[in-house]
Amino acid sequence: MSRFRKRRAAKAGLPPGTLVYTGEKVDEQAKICIMEYDENILSEKETSTVDECLVFKNKPGVTWIDVNGISHIPNLQKLGECFNLHPLVMEDILNVDQRPKTEDYDDYLFIVLKNIRYDRTSDDIAAQQVSFILGPNYVISFHENATEIFAPVRERVRTAKGRIRKGGADYLAYSLIDLIVDNYFIVLEDFGEHIEFLEDEVVKQPTPATLGIIHRCKNDMILLRKSMWPLREVVSRLERKESPLISDATSLYFKDVYDHVIVAIDTVETNRDILSGMLDIYLSSVSYKLNEIMKVLTIIATIFMPLTFMAGVYGMNFKNLPELQWEYGYFIALGGMLAVALTMLYFFRRKKWI
Amino acid sequence: MSRFRKRRAAKAGLPPGTLVYTGEKVDEQAKICIMEYDENILSEKETSTVDECLVFKNKPGVTWIDVNGISHIPNLQKLGECFNLHPLVMEDILNVDQRPKTEDYDDYLFIVLKNIRYDRTSDDIAAQQVSFILGPNYVISFHENATEIFAPVRERVRTAKGRIRKGGADYLAYSLIDLIVDNYFIVLEDFGEHIEFLEDEVVKQPTPATLGIIHRCKNDMILLRKSMWPLREVVSRLERKESPLISDATSLYFKDVYDHVIVAIDTVETNRDILSGMLDIYLSSVSYKLNEIMKVLTIIATIFMPLTFMAGVYGMNFKNLPELQWEYGYFIALGGMLAVALTMLYFFRRKKWI
Amino acid sequence: MSRFRKRRAAKAGLPPGTLVYTGEKVDEQAKICIMEYDENILSEKETSTVDECLVFKNKPGVTWIDVNGISHIPNLQKLGECFNLHPLVMEDILNVDQRPKTEDYDDYLFIVLKNIRYDRTSDDIAAQQVSFILGPNYVISFHENATEIFAPVRERVRTAKGRIRKGGADYLAYSLIDLIVDNYFIVLEDFGEHIEFLEDEVVKQPTPATLGIIHRCKNDMILLRKSMWPLREVVSRLERKESPLISDATSLYFKDVYDHVIVAIDTVETNRDILSGMLDIYLSSVSYKLNEIMKVLTIIATIFMPLTFMAGVYGMNFKNLPELQWEYGYFIALGGMLAVALTMLYFFRRKKWI
Amino acid sequence: MSRFRKRRAAKAGLPPGTLVYTGEKVDEQAKICIMEYDENILSEKETSTVDECLVFKNKPGVTWIDVNGISHIPNLQKLGECFNLHPLVMEDILNVDQRPKTEDYDDYLFIVLKNIRYDRTSDDIAAQQVSFILGPNYVISFHENATEIFAPVRERVRTAKGRIRKGGADYLAYSLIDLIVDNYFIVLEDFGEHIEFLEDEVVKQPTPATLGIIHRCKNDMILLRKSMWPLREVVSRLERKESPLISDATSLYFKDVYDHVIVAIDTVETNRDILSGMLDIYLSSVSYKLNEIMKVLTIIATIFMPLTFMAGVYGMNFKNLPELQWEYGYFIALGGMLAVALTMLYFFRRKKWI
Amino acid sequence: MSRFRKRRAAKAGLPPGTLVYTGEKVDEQAKICIMEYDENILSEKETSTVDECLVFKNKPGVTWIDVNGISHIPNLQKLGECFNLHPLVMEDILNVDQRPKTEDYDDYLFIVLKNIRYDRTSDDIAAQQVSFILGPNYVISFHENATEIFAPVRERVRTAKGRIRKGGADYLAYSLIDLIVDNYFIVLEDFGEHIEFLEDEVVKQPTPATLGIIHRCKNDMILLRKSMWPLREVVSRLERKESPLISDATSLYFKDVYDHVIVAIDTVETNRDILSGMLDIYLSSVSYKLNEIMKVLTIIATIFMPLTFMAGVYGMNFKNLPELQWEYGYFIALGGMLAVALTMLYFFRRKKWI
Repeated sequence: MSRFRKRRAAKAGLPPGTLVYTGEKVDEQAKICIMEYDENILSEKETSTVDECLVFKNKPGVTWIDVNGISHIPNLQKLGECFNLHPLVMEDILNVDQRPKTEDYDDYLFIVLKNIRYDRTSDDIAAQQVSFILGPNYVISFHENATEIFAPVRERVRTAKGRIRKGGADYLAYSLIDLIVDNYFIVLEDFGEHIEFLEDEVVKQPTPATLGIIHRCKNDMILLRKSMWPLREVVSRLERKESPLISDATSLYFKDVYDHVIVAIDTVETNRDILSGMLDIYLSSVSYKLNEIMKVLTIIATIFMPLTFMAGVYGMNFKNLPELQWEYGYFIALGGMLAVALTMLYFFRRKKWI
Repeated sequence: MSRFRKRRAAKAGLPPGTLVYTGEKVDEQAKICIMEYDENILSEKETSTVDECLVFKNKPGVTWIDVNGISHIPNLQKLGECFNLHPLVMEDILNVDQRPKTEDYDDYLFIVLKNIRYDRTSDDIAAQQVSFILGPNYVISFHENATEIFAPVRERVRTAKGRIRKGGADYLAYSLIDLIVDNYFIVLEDFGEHIEFLEDEVVKQPTPATLGIIHRCKNDMILLRKSMWPLREVVSRLERKESPLISDATSLYFKDVYDHVIVAIDTVETNRDILSGMLDIYLSSVSYKLNEIMKVLTIIATIFMPLTFMAGVYGMNFKNLPELQWEYGYFIALGGMLAVALTMLYFFRRKKWI
Repeated sequence: MSRFRKRRAAKAGLPPGTLVYTGEKVDEQAKICIMEYDENILSEKETSTVDECLVFKNKPGVTWIDVNGISHIPNLQKLGECFNLHPLVMEDILNVDQRPKTEDYDDYLFIVLKNIRYDRTSDDIAAQQVSFILGPNYVISFHENATEIFAPVRERVRTAKGRIRKGGADYLAYSLIDLIVDNYFIVLEDFGEHIEFLEDEVVKQPTPATLGIIHRCKNDMILLRKSMWPLREVVSRLERKESPLISDATSLYFKDVYDHVIVAIDTVETNRDILSGMLDIYLSSVSYKLNEIMKVLTIIATIFMPLTFMAGVYGMNFKNLPELQWEYGYFIALGGMLAVALTMLYFFRRKKWI
Repeated sequence: MSRFRKRRAAKAGLPPGTLVYTGEKVDEQAKICIMEYDENILSEKETSTVDECLVFKNKPGVTWIDVNGISHIPNLQKLGECFNLHPLVMEDILNVDQRPKTEDYDDYLFIVLKNIRYDRTSDDIAAQQVSFILGPNYVISFHENATEIFAPVRERVRTAKGRIRKGGADYLAYSLIDLIVDNYFIVLEDFGEHIEFLEDEVVKQPTPATLGIIHRCKNDMILLRKSMWPLREVVSRLERKESPLISDATSLYFKDVYDHVIVAIDTVETNRDILSGMLDIYLSSVSYKLNEIMKVLTIIATIFMPLTFMAGVYGMNFKNLPELQWEYGYFIALGGMLAVALTMLYFFRRKKWI
Repeated sequence: MSRFRKRRAAKAGLPPGTLVYTGEKVDEQAKICIMEYDENILSEKETSTVDECLVFKNKPGVTWIDVNGISHIPNLQKLGECFNLHPLVMEDILNVDQRPKTEDYDDYLFIVLKNIRYDRTSDDIAAQQVSFILGPNYVISFHENATEIFAPVRERVRTAKGRIRKGGADYLAYSLIDLIVDNYFIVLEDFGEHIEFLEDEVVKQPTPATLGIIHRCKNDMILLRKSMWPLREVVSRLERKESPLISDATSLYFKDVYDHVIVAIDTVETNRDILSGMLDIYLSSVSYKLNEIMKVLTIIATIFMPLTFMAGVYGMNFKNLPELQWEYGYFIALGGMLAVALTMLYFFRRKKWI
């Protein structure tokens, strides 16, 4: 998740409104999907140049322009001019290191979100910036690459499932944002399983590998949290009907999304607390195991050191060492050793070490 | 308590208002208990289809429809339509992963709570979602399965004990919520005993098992807290008389419930602090015990290593080793060894190790 | 201080307003002390039944009814009816597990506080619930048992010392609350001495006993804090003159009490921080001592293991072992051993271990 | 700094307004310095009785009465009566355990502050309570003993340096408070040096002494912080021009003091964070050193135990032990021992232990 | 970064408005760069005395006076008088230990910021105070030394790039502040790399050096945070259009800066959390390694102690020790030893130690 802290420095000193794409460069042209619909009709078009979108601006139905890939700047610039977008908005769309936020430019709302995905192969969370322009009868969505993250909504529009064809542009925006919030749950549930697995391991068999995973999970939670707190503000502002672009009916749906965001934040906080606790458990387990190891060592040493000493005594070569001459000296010595060993064992037993 | 983090992902991408039951599937039909009462009369009925409830809608007295088991969706849908419930409300009733909340839909209040129970056999906290619809003269309550959690209130209605038959629907809602809040205390007191027991054990005989229990208790507290903070908001909103559905007299009772919730939250926070402290104690105890173990080892080694060395010296086979020839060489050597041992013991005594 | 988390569960499911005394049962009848005074006259009476209080209700002077012992419910019920107390108030007086709070019932203020005492013998903090009813010209105080906690105020009324005989019922309430707040300081100062003593011990001679005491003190602070934060709200509300029952002049005195409460809370927070720090110190001290122990062991082992080995070599029985035949072999061997020992000692000296 | 938690208990149960001096008793009479000045004239007087101050009350210029030593109560009482001070104000001046605060009594402002000094010999922070009465044309300042803490301001008045002679009583109060705030910086900078020194020591040569100092510093910071947070409120209230006693021009200067207080609080918080970090460093350093010690022990033991065993084998007295008869048995044995030792060393080298 | 806590004490007791430069003394005269421009014309001048600036005060275009080096006080005093700056403003410009802040003096805004730079050689963060006076048509900027921190903006003015020549003085101020905020990102990204490097090292090869670096990074974050929280307030106040000196159009740009500051603060907080986590990891790693070391020691001791003891037994010189006389005694003994060793190894294998 290191991408969360890169690239912004490249823009230091440039005048504001300079359009610089700060994401990973990809060669592909933008793929632009346009949908225009109302309750009865639906027209769909896929293109790679912006020119074809421009005619849709003043159509009566709802127009959804979905821009996949934002590395081709002139294209975007043309789009921005057509829809009268502020230069700072254009800059923020391209600067993929934004904090989630919503800004009200009277004619349209500008919304920036992060869509996250859990990459099982690299065991990493990938975040992609998604921006929305919500106008009176259009939604323009921008995302970094051509992944079809909005496919379920597109499908719903096509099949006219649910309220979507009857709702306005604000309902479309809601559907897209809801989809992004739902993605947080998918990631969080993957994490939940991970954490349950770790909880077992940390008590039973703590290794530095466990430690590394806990540390990584914790950092992921820190970063998730960082992107979710502002999300809460964003949705809360949409729900509070501050803009006339959002109807009363739709604001009720945003309230629902808001509830989801709160639950997700709760889960992240809970996970953080649990992971913090797991570090303590790790340390305690390791300390406890050290005690066990030391007990073994101490028991062995405490039993064999006196015995070895006794054997050493009777290995001395003094001319006059009476015991050596005794008939049963050897057996008495062995008996003495056994007695010492048993005494020690009894002592440890009483101390509950064995 | 793992159920707190499951199942929501299953709904990602579906249009809002889609009714999906996210709890544990149970085959049983819903059991619906209907009570209709005013100060003088009381009629009670038990059914499994929704149709019979519908007639109760406009009765003058207070109607309480208690739906046990919500896995049978068409039933609920019919009920929802009859009482004009918003699709999002219906969705939230079925999605048993809600955060406690209250929503004001003018005609009725929608309240979601968690009823918790401490399962002594599995040593686990089980949470069950309970939803209420509070209308002007009716209360509809939904819970996941057929446990008779509301039995005490039902009994009070039957026997006309306390104010309940004289109060309106809001007083009935209060009685039910009060019951749920009281359940938190039962669980918390079970926990309290647990914690007192742990406090003893952690100082006297800390084992990894203790550690595991502390960890589990701490996580339980984290999760309890997560469900209690929103509970506080819920009750506070009911108490502040924001809705005309709640009378002045009843709001006073909600204030009482609010006080209880605050006390319960305080207790959870206190338990968390105490459990956190116990982890430190555990670690400190284990460290201290390590010191004790190492002292034993060091004392043994420090006494016997020099002795063994001395014995080793007189076990050497040098042709010319004068002491070996002395008449009392052996006894002098033993005396020397004793002197060394006593010196060491004196040294440890002074260091307060023994 | 375990009593902080008990007994509430016993009331689960009962209708509100059911009077159940949740404190420790004591057989004794309530002792009721009645004082009626104005600037000039003073009449005092002690009784055990409530009936005698009832006449005092509408007297012109200030009436103070002090109820010692609240386990006799019918008595209280009669009193409550006479003074028109709300059933929830009566319930809260008996339920001795309340959070400190103040409630405005227009005709009277209901105030709940905790009076704490530090029991030197059991080394424990005991909390006792004290409730006040402040009416226009009367104060009714309730406490769990017959300890004379209000003796100093009673004495002041008798001797007409200070403003008390000139002030109204609100000034009397202030005097009683002030007394309770002052008790917090007495307990806190006892704790302060305890903590200073611990601070010494934890660095010099940390034992598990110290650890246990720190843990107990910390828990006491957690519980004290829990009862003091709401106290702050209580006094703050009294000071802000929200009720006409409190005159301007008296509100100035409540401001003074408020300052005291803040100082007490500060002290509790400070003590908590210091005690938390002490746990770290304990752990660090124990770790450091372990190092010291291990140094001793390592020094001994590092010196004697090579020596023992050397002795072992010359104790071998090889037929052809030239050194054994040397005239001064023994002394050379001893010299070699001494050299090895000195080298080791020099090495440890340089490492600053000795 | 133990004085922060003493003596208040002595007042428990006394009626409010009882004047009890809670500071250290000193025999000396109060020394009272009176200055009366306007832009042109300046008269100065030193006395030990209060009577001489009384004439200054209604003079047109600014009068500054500086009371050094407040243990002589009748004196103060007379002063308080002359300037119409509320009994609670008089009580707070004498009770030197106040929290910094400001109170508006319409005719005058009552301000309580702590003046701190770092005592290099005892390595301790000493706090002294300083109280101000700011009237329309007079300032009365009280401090516990005769230290000349206000000398710089007195000098400025004498030499008419800066705005002080042109400003009113509020500007004088500002100058005095500014001086006290500046003293915090002096103490904090002394601490800063201390901390930098500790930072070096804790990594290089951690000893229990270091630990003790860290602990003490941390407690000092906790206590400093406790006295600085309310200071912030005090100055903030003065700056917000809530009282007509403070002119617009002077409020600008209080804003400056406010900035200083914020910087000082920031520094205290920073120091606390750094000191907390240092405890972790200490523990980690000690643990690391333990590892180093154990490596030495393990290396020694691992090399010499097998060798000693081998020597032991050939020291056995079996009649039939073939190797003993070999011509070069001894040298072969020595060679074998060397091989074992080198193998062990190679193993440790690979593990990067040596 | 020790400079953050120095030098302020030098001013204790001086009257406010006394001009004392508290930064590092440098001999060089101030270098003053003056730019005057509007959309069409641009005049630029470099000087070292203040007199030449004075004529620019009432010019119609935007005037930017950039003062490099503020150790020459009379110069500044003259400038301050010409532009009617308040003495406290002049004092704050010279006192380079200010907290970032903005103050509204009606005629002009006074803004104090910190410009930070990461010094790779000393691995340290250097902070330099930068102050701005924003008047209706002029900006005066002050910084401690002659580093050309504003070069990019100067270049933009020269080349008329972006909006800068069309914007007013407020837009110029925005450009300068934006530049300073961008510098925070450069430093934070350098830190980010550092931290990623440390994360690797702390798990793999923790040494006290790593510990020292973590500690230093953490302290740097504490100090960065200390200077960034007030920065947030500063920019927020500029963005909220509280002063008429900032136009609506420009306030939109300040909103953009505000977003950047928030992202920077988020990053600092995240880094702190990660670094705190790393300390725990360090401690856990060290503990784990100790376990590994002790396992080696215990295995060696547990195997060789019994063997050495057995060898010792048969090295005893008892006259009557039957085994010694056995034909294959030696080989049986060796076999016994091997059996003991293998048993031990099997035991450790089962305990998963090897």
